[in-house]
Amino acid sequence: MVPGTAPAVAAPAAGRAPITLAEFGSFHVGGRDFVVSGQPTREVLFSPGGQPARVDPNGTYLVGGMYAGYMIPAPQRGRFPLLMWHGGGLTGVTWETTPDGREGWQHFFLRRGWPVYVSDAVERGRSGWTMIPEATGGQPIFLTEDNPYERFRIGDGPGSRARGTTLPGNQFPADGDSYRNFMRQNVPRFTTTDELTLEAYGALLDRVGPSVVMVHSQGGFFGWRAAQERPDKVRALVLVEPAAVGDLAKVAALKDVPMLVLYGDYIDGDARWPAIRASGMRFAEAVRAAGGSVDVVNLPERGIRGNSHMMMMDRNSDTVAGLVQEWLAGKGLWA
Amino acid sequence: MVPGTAPAVAAPAAGRAPITLAEFGSFHVGGRDFVVSGQPTREVLFSPGGQPARVDPNGTYLVGGMYAGYMIPAPQRGRFPLLMWHGGGLTGVTWETTPDGREGWQHFFLRRGWPVYVSDAVERGRSGWTMIPEATGGQPIFLTEDNPYERFRIGDGPGSRARGTTLPGNQFPADGDSYRNFMRQNVPRFTTTDELTLEAYGALLDRVGPSVVMVHSQGGFFGWRAAQERPDKVRALVLVEPAAVGDLAKVAALKDVPMLVLYGDYIDGDARWPAIRASGMRFAEAVRAAGGSVDVVNLPERGIRGNSHMMMMDRNSDTVAGLVQEWLAGKGLWA
Repeated sequence: MVPGTAPAVAAPAAGRAPITLAEFGSFHVGGRDFVVSGQPTREVLFSPGGQPARVDPNGTYLVGGMYAGYMIPAPQRGRFPLLMWHGGGLTGVTWETTPDGREGWQHFFLRRGWPVYVSDAVERGRSGWTMIPEATGGQPIFLTEDNPYERFRIGDGPGSRARGTTLPGNQFPADGDSYRNFMRQNVPRFTTTDELTLEAYGALLDRVGPSVVMVHSQGGFFGWRAAQERPDKVRALVLVEPAAVGDLAKVAALKDVPMLVLYGDYIDGDARWPAIRASGMRFAEAVRAAGGSVDVVNLPERGIRGNSHMMMMDRNSDTVAGLVQEWLAGKGLWA
Repeated sequence: MVPGTAPAVAAPAAGRAPITLAEFGSFHVGGRDFVVSGQPTREVLFSPGGQPARVDPNGTYLVGGMYAGYMIPAPQRGRFPLLMWHGGGLTGVTWETTPDGREGWQHFFLRRGWPVYVSDAVERGRSGWTMIPEATGGQPIFLTEDNPYERFRIGDGPGSRARGTTLPGNQFPADGDSYRNFMRQNVPRFTTTDELTLEAYGALLDRVGPSVVMVHSQGGFFGWRAAQERPDKVRALVLVEPAAVGDLAKVAALKDVPMLVLYGDYIDGDARWPAIRASGMRFAEAVRAAGGSVDVVNLPERGIRGNSHMMMMDRNSDTVAGLVQEWLAGKGLWA
């Protein structure tokens, strides 16, 4: 049953038990003031038939704030909050649902008693963005419907979406309707806001306190860097296909932060992922050499096949989440 | 206690009972394809230290999709889902929390058994935006920190935020930290996407089915228009300081949709709100003349004073919500 359809309003999703929350809500953290001056004022009609208002663009703007929504289950079994940090061009929705309407990893871990915090990175989703180029520089990037289909190891090469073909045995829900749902989740990608974003994740860790941090893709950069800056606030780091690494000069800071790195299928045959994974492996080796602990799982080696770059949305997403849950429990982070 | 702080993770907010959800999740609806052609390709380094990727901007983009998150409580007492549509320059966060960290209207109505759907309008929040001017036209507007303080009837005129002064008895949490939290919720405001947005709200009503629709400010335009286009899908309309009206030529379509319109304090002394309210009153009169039912509440006339344009965030937000709940129950929409 697809959540949100009329029937779903009347009854819980088939086979799913209700969830009791001790608390839920959202908040924003971080951000800086940015001053604009010397610009002309203009009159703006905010709503048709409404009253025009004078808008003076000069003044102080708050840029770089970050949104986080949280759900605290009862009873609670995770020993620390679980923070979920999405990848580039996406928002926290990555963890909330799947393109074919199944429950997402947010549900999976909440149902196992983890307090779950799902945030939107700076300038994406409910964090807002600035539209002041001087504040963050650069041009956001917006993807065509074909781009992720080919780049996220779903389709079998150029033109695959038009053909409607996927890599053999691919687990991503790639039917037309589901893939369209995934594209609706895509938002413009900022490539010049890393510093602001890292600052905001730091503010999130300071506010929530010691946490388990789970990151995806671009989030790998932020997860590793944030843990290097605040090793006392990161009790474990789960990295789902990290697209970038942390600071090689500060690997020693990670020696007491247990890490799990996950990679999906089809990497050897991909144009970019062999190099991205090799870079991640070099970083992991450096962390180990500094006395740290990094467990690396290539899903196919565990007999889990067909996973795209979006494994938290793949049809076997619960299987992959189960492997993460097992690892966290093994580290004594779940009671 | 401020949600999200470390203590809040361990225990429910003081004096608040846990909430049981039969189901929760999110989805996107709507949107159109938009084709871009004749643009040069470029190489993009998505993450520092990552692998550059070629990005071809030509192709088909999905624009105008809309995000909605839902929570279905158990037991359920609302006879229909309650859809919450935010105002301009903001997102669904409007309903989720208050700037001083109290529970928002989402909590208030969920705790009374309403299935609550909180959406982000097209091109705002998790709905994403296009960055293709040809697709939607116009320039988004971003507000200085002073602008809403003066325009939303919080401060007592120009320079009030710098002075730290408010209208007498103002209920908005205007202390420095709280107001900063509110500014973090602000996102760029689009003034040229009304058609796309109305289309997406229609898609939301078609997906969820007959609902009670609650709108704020700019949402007044969308709420009235959507109800005129789909009177069978809107069982009641609650309008919180609507900034614009519906289609005067189609008021007859609203004759079977009970409506409640709420206005806060300080309107008579404001530069724009007397005209905005007068226009709303003319529209309400036209709906009544066509056989419809519109109840109008000016909060001060009920002895509820000090409310800003953001009454769902004001310190007496529960009092105002209680008045709405009473009205809905009175219409037989709550059992």
